Amino acid sequence: MYRSHTCGELRIEDKNQEVTLAGWVQKIRDKGFMAWVDLRDRYGITQLIFDEERTPKEMMERATELGREFVIQVKGKVIERESKNPNLPTGDIEILVSELQILNTSELPPFTIEDDTDGGEDIRMKYRYLDIRRNAVKNKLMFRHKVGMQVRNYLSGQGFIEVETPYLIKSTPEGARDFVVPSRMNEGQFYALPQSPQTFKQLLMVGGMDKYFQIVKCFRDEDLRADRQPEFTQIDCEMAFVEQEDILNIFEGLTTHLLKEIKGVKVSEFPRMTYAEAMKKYGNDKPDIRFGMEFGELNELAKNKGFNVFDQQELVVGIAVPGAASYTRKEIDKLIEWVKRPQIAANGLVWVKYNEDGSLKSSVDKFYSEEDLKSWATKTGANPGDLILVMAGDANKTRTQLSALRMHLANDLGLRKADEFAPLWVVDFPLLEWDEESNRFHAMHHPFTSPKPEDMELLKTKPGEVRANAYDLVLNGNEIGGGSIRIHDKATQAEMFNYLGFTPEEAKAQFGFLMDAFEYGAPPHGGIAFGFDRLVAILGGHETIRDYIAFPKNNSGRDVMIDAPAKIDEAQLNELHLKLKL
Amino acid sequence: MYRSHTCGELRIEDKNQEVTLAGWVQKIRDKGFMAWVDLRDRYGITQLIFDEERTPKEMMERATELGREFVIQVKGKVIERESKNPNLPTGDIEILVSELQILNTSELPPFTIEDDTDGGEDIRMKYRYLDIRRNAVKNKLMFRHKVGMQVRNYLSGQGFIEVETPYLIKSTPEGARDFVVPSRMNEGQFYALPQSPQTFKQLLMVGGMDKYFQIVKCFRDEDLRADRQPEFTQIDCEMAFVEQEDILNIFEGLTTHLLKEIKGVKVSEFPRMTYAEAMKKYGNDKPDIRFGMEFGELNELAKNKGFNVFDQQELVVGIAVPGAASYTRKEIDKLIEWVKRPQIAANGLVWVKYNEDGSLKSSVDKFYSEEDLKSWATKTGANPGDLILVMAGDANKTRTQLSALRMHLANDLGLRKADEFAPLWVVDFPLLEWDEESNRFHAMHHPFTSPKPEDMELLKTKPGEVRANAYDLVLNGNEIGGGSIRIHDKATQAEMFNYLGFTPEEAKAQFGFLMDAFEYGAPPHGGIAFGFDRLVAILGGHETIRDYIAFPKNNSGRDVMIDAPAKIDEAQLNELHLKLKL
Repeated sequence: MYRSHTCGELRIEDKNQEVTLAGWVQKIRDKGFMAWVDLRDRYGITQLIFDEERTPKEMMERATELGREFVIQVKGKVIERESKNPNLPTGDIEILVSELQILNTSELPPFTIEDDTDGGEDIRMKYRYLDIRRNAVKNKLMFRHKVGMQVRNYLSGQGFIEVETPYLIKSTPEGARDFVVPSRMNEGQFYALPQSPQTFKQLLMVGGMDKYFQIVKCFRDEDLRADRQPEFTQIDCEMAFVEQEDILNIFEGLTTHLLKEIKGVKVSEFPRMTYAEAMKKYGNDKPDIRFGMEFGELNELAKNKGFNVFDQQELVVGIAVPGAASYTRKEIDKLIEWVKRPQIAANGLVWVKYNEDGSLKSSVDKFYSEEDLKSWATKTGANPGDLILVMAGDANKTRTQLSALRMHLANDLGLRKADEFAPLWVVDFPLLEWDEESNRFHAMHHPFTSPKPEDMELLKTKPGEVRANAYDLVLNGNEIGGGSIRIHDKATQAEMFNYLGFTPEEAKAQFGFLMDAFEYGAPPHGGIAFGFDRLVAILGGHETIRDYIAFPKNNSGRDVMIDAPAKIDEAQLNELHLKLKL
Repeated sequence: MYRSHTCGELRIEDKNQEVTLAGWVQKIRDKGFMAWVDLRDRYGITQLIFDEERTPKEMMERATELGREFVIQVKGKVIERESKNPNLPTGDIEILVSELQILNTSELPPFTIEDDTDGGEDIRMKYRYLDIRRNAVKNKLMFRHKVGMQVRNYLSGQGFIEVETPYLIKSTPEGARDFVVPSRMNEGQFYALPQSPQTFKQLLMVGGMDKYFQIVKCFRDEDLRADRQPEFTQIDCEMAFVEQEDILNIFEGLTTHLLKEIKGVKVSEFPRMTYAEAMKKYGNDKPDIRFGMEFGELNELAKNKGFNVFDQQELVVGIAVPGAASYTRKEIDKLIEWVKRPQIAANGLVWVKYNEDGSLKSSVDKFYSEEDLKSWATKTGANPGDLILVMAGDANKTRTQLSALRMHLANDLGLRKADEFAPLWVVDFPLLEWDEESNRFHAMHHPFTSPKPEDMELLKTKPGEVRANAYDLVLNGNEIGGGSIRIHDKATQAEMFNYLGFTPEEAKAQFGFLMDAFEYGAPPHGGIAFGFDRLVAILGGHETIRDYIAFPKNNSGRDVMIDAPAKIDEAQLNELHLKLKL
């Protein structure tokens, strides 16, 4: 036993107790005849006092050898502090040290182990084990554990069984790129790491497991964007004998439970919105509905009034920015520049100030009467004091651009509050989406998603309009989960592969086992998967996931701490029947 | 909603309720005017009755189309059964069907979905989703979930934090062979899949996480023996500021908790035995101590008495087989043949019958007096009625052979009771073991294990005699967990790598990050890992793990259901900068 107590638990009630603590030296104040050390561990900080009148001389001397991040063990008596620290749970007491043992020394850390560190991202990643000592990271990892436990206990309580599915599976051409694993024992063959346990969870439903879940690592070998990791964690769920409504209900339950247990927030409503409506109202299939700024379509009101710029466009659409009528010309110009950035690539913005006094002033006063502008205000839901911003162009592109602007403004205006939670179901996703590059339809969700029965006949005529039994759970503008009711009969599944451009032979080679399974009494089933990294980050009040992952990879997919990936031996390659081709 | 109730929940109290059930057709008995169907789901079986007097005609007709494993939905009334089935929780009632919907048909399954199936291992693995419908498999998977939940809740309650460590890490030459993952973005480089999260959990200790655990998949590309899987699951744990005693205590707690919650068994004792003692007494570092049959060493008593066969041998050692004095000559010959099999490869057995009347009769009566044999009986702890079996030869080999015989006999004699649990700590493992093939010492546990301080000086003179701070938890003759106190200073770690044949450059290239971490205040730490697959199997009363894994691989590392591994495209190989070398 290296300690009788942790550094977070002693209180004034423990006064006069003889205790043993162990931990890291956080801070030293040395006045020669007296020294104070902040001793830190996972549980907190306790102040140690070395006092030449009361601490043995040898220990006083040893204390002078201490440096930041040294690991020490001390024995001593709990005494009342002269100057208490009300910000620290242990702030009423300190330990009068009688024995000091240096368990390990430390070099000067490459960055300060403080809440506000001086270390940049790169150096903190290289020394991630030091970064984890910081509350900022440590607390996020502990938070993640707490969320994981709540998820497991809730789902288990609802009768879900956590089943581990295999990591060494088979590569499939559909979807993102697989990571593969060469097999030594099966010459010239490869396993693939799962992008998700999709087919396995469906087979578990065929197997009668009824309610399955798993918190599981998944892998995608995609070019990394900011905040995307090659390995990520999913809460993967599947249920048999259910319709969409049953799944939405169960996972509203899970979300409500998490918000209550983790955040102390009570959420009573899970509004539902079709994909079409979300795109029309917010230009986005994962709208943040915590604030308004819904789109007002202005085609009828703004076209053919002499402003040529609008006349030729497919869509004229605006939003009302609350309280922004007072923006200066300079502030508005900044917004115009923002939307012209290559990431957004809009042509520009038309603005209308709906002044507090009810008057209207716009960048297009030449073409529109005050009455015209008033009708825009009505359509965008603007109130006196608001600024109306209008974009025009190709419908899909313009919606996406205006959505980006809407989120940008909401962030700026502080409308996206970390402690406010507004979940939303987006339903009726399209089954297929056209891919320009491959010149064919792809499954929007995945090839196992069932079309809505009433849209089935459109499959042959207007495949792009077929809706799927697919749904996303959106929280505060982030997709935290998505799923669908699956196809469970062989004929429909074969037809779907056909639409997706598989030959029957390809379909059989890749997914024959699933279609075979559908011949032996497959029940109706469906499910959902949550991005666990993102869910945890959002519950934690953040939108970047990296700090919620203990050992994340950088944007080149490298672990800079252990320096992986790395070269392997020629002998190892030979065993795997491989040669490099550089 | 496909159902109002599951097939396991209706009771006589529910009589007259209108219910909807969904599930699989387990069995049909059709008498024309009446038919009974056993409807099965995860939760149980409920009997349906079709009765031409009370069931609509159309439904009676549809019932004739049913086959085994069809998926159906029925509506009907709960009625009391005429002939009740006391073996079924729902056996007092049946459902008088008023509506029948066939949700999916089924081909005739390739084996019967019964507790005692007619399907062999191979066919059941190919159609694993059908195998999982059988209680025998389904219950094991549900049991595994239950154990996992208990482990997580217990450890979490003890302050352990589950931290997910990465799956894409770096290949290391030490230990077993790694599975590797070629990197597309880092040309010519490879990730490796973890054989265990060993270094990461140590870094978490350096990072102040204090108590870590994870239920995690691990990977070893080894030639597969029966009951060894290329991917397996580990309960991985690590603690900081602990000594061996602290770890043993915590994990006695976990084991006690599991035995109590899962098996209802109260275990009060966790005896400890040194590795040396275990080898001497049982010839085995994971002895089953539920029964006696401890080794009695007979060198003093059996050598130099004129029986040349023994005189030249390093060790003469025997066991007493309880109640086996009555074995016939034929039975004894069978045992002799058994030990001569190539797997055991012993030369033979000397036997001594200690008859009920106190007389002794042996295969070596020519050389030994009754008094001699009596002394053997005393030494092996034999009682009248026991059979003493004696082997001789090279000490290590003979112990291993006699251990195998001991286990064989215990199985035969029913001494290894599935409902009896006897945990045991084996401690003081050797640090190093000599490897004939590579002609050098290897780490017995792994290179991060700390030597016992008092044995440190032996490292240079008699490295094979250095004991480690390493321990195994043994349950009923199976190693269920193993761990050690780790090295936590750079100098000792570097020295250890040196002893293991690493050049300083190799050590730095492979484990530089860990040794660097030790320079920044690494706390004393240690841990343990449990083989989760085996633990679950043993708690379940079995010793083979395969049925406790949802989708196991066969002895060639293949998943015969999905047919993996498989070939991948040339294009995919090109992207990975690889060529096959066949």
